[in-house]
Amino acid sequence: MRVALGLEYDGGRFCGWQSQPSGCGVQDALERALAAIAGRFVRVAAAGRTDSGVHATAQVAHFDAPVERPLTAWVRGVNSELPQGVAVLWAQPVADAFHARFSATGRAYTYLLLNRASRPGLAAGRVGWFHRPLDVERMRAAASLLLGRHDFSAFRAAECQANSPLRELRRVEIERRGELVVFRFAADAFLQHMVRNLVGSLVYVGKGRHPPHWIGEVLAGRDRAAAAPTFAPDGLYLTAVEYDNAWGLPQPCAREPLVMA
Amino acid sequence: MRVALGLEYDGGRFCGWQSQPSGCGVQDALERALAAIAGRFVRVAAAGRTDSGVHATAQVAHFDAPVERPLTAWVRGVNSELPQGVAVLWAQPVADAFHARFSATGRAYTYLLLNRASRPGLAAGRVGWFHRPLDVERMRAAASLLLGRHDFSAFRAAECQANSPLRELRRVEIERRGELVVFRFAADAFLQHMVRNLVGSLVYVGKGRHPPHWIGEVLAGRDRAAAAPTFAPDGLYLTAVEYDNAWGLPQPCAREPLVMA
Repeated sequence: MRVALGLEYDGGRFCGWQSQPSGCGVQDALERALAAIAGRFVRVAAAGRTDSGVHATAQVAHFDAPVERPLTAWVRGVNSELPQGVAVLWAQPVADAFHARFSATGRAYTYLLLNRASRPGLAAGRVGWFHRPLDVERMRAAASLLLGRHDFSAFRAAECQANSPLRELRRVEIERRGELVVFRFAADAFLQHMVRNLVGSLVYVGKGRHPPHWIGEVLAGRDRAAAAPTFAPDGLYLTAVEYDNAWGLPQPCAREPLVMA
Repeated sequence: MRVALGLEYDGGRFCGWQSQPSGCGVQDALERALAAIAGRFVRVAAAGRTDSGVHATAQVAHFDAPVERPLTAWVRGVNSELPQGVAVLWAQPVADAFHARFSATGRAYTYLLLNRASRPGLAAGRVGWFHRPLDVERMRAAASLLLGRHDFSAFRAAECQANSPLRELRRVEIERRGELVVFRFAADAFLQHMVRNLVGSLVYVGKGRHPPHWIGEVLAGRDRAAAAPTFAPDGLYLTAVEYDNAWGLPQPCAREPLVMA
């Protein structure tokens, strides 16, 4: 039986989603916990292979259960075996054709940027930081130029392994919440470092270094060197993975991270 | 010159506010950073001596500067010397008669309780957890019985060193924000573990183990053994320290912790 899982984790406690020889990936922790419940090794696949330091409020993974267990065993039982900083939120039987990554039709990420003079103390590891005032209206104007289906090579990590640089950016929202600037992005899928690179370039516009239309020029130029540096992973959260309703996964899957009141 | 500081910290990275022989207190970290800027040892005193694991969004401390430095040195300079998880938010010269602890006329704490079946993953160390549904209305009815000036011995740690168990509880607010129940308490001052013990007993009422008026009986009985167990420090945040306006400290000092969007 194939089982889908909803997961949340504090990326600062792991070296990214993906399994590593040292066993420090979220995937490693989950596979160890599943093995403890199933009595044998279980391979999992996730919708988004988040980088080291990147958090998730709504990661989705799947595995093929080698033994029959009540669904609560895949939630409460697995949680009792998982280390601090990661938890299973739900488990759901799915058709064998379901694949957490390949069946996903969309992903959403939120970036939390602390925008104040003092560096993060309480929220260290949970937010990015920019110390000078940012103009949210300018950033919104720039962000609107990114919407739609484009070649996002300018915002793609050199080591990105995706077959194509084409992505459809469906939504960008930017709002100020007290000391935080909250960026929300939704797309069919994202290239490696794409959100962190987009935030870096939007900050260049927000601090007044470039006019909003500069973003459009960077996008059209498809040259990574023309865009701004990559922002820290600390503020990035995978907040939703979308699937066709026919798969019968819990709805809504979107979960916002913690933000300042 | 006496200087007041506003501070925030992630209590999970320290063994409480107070200086320890091993140097793991927030006070130790701050005194080391101040010494690096001042060139000699500087003793600090704080408004609230938070326990190990307890966070602060708005701690206030003071020290006597042994050398003249621009105020920015006591913010940016000290922040560059502080370890991860603690930051100075502001510095302000104050009269020599000011004392962060003894001049304070009120304190406020917020307790964040994750109320859902799955244990905390992303918010591990940042929230308390209770897995069964809680009735907020019942807890509010119970909390209203605690308001005013009372002997809070029933909610006081055995090792509490306060001279008197009398405290004036001025405000209790309880609200649900998604999966979180947010408790806000304000008083002239708090006894050791008082908020965590109050939350424990309110949860007893919220889960239906006792009727709301039970809290009044526990309070009147002044017997710690009659109340509920102490809740985890993970969900507790010192969110405000009040002073007379005449001291000229930044207003408002209250700062909310992270909550669900």
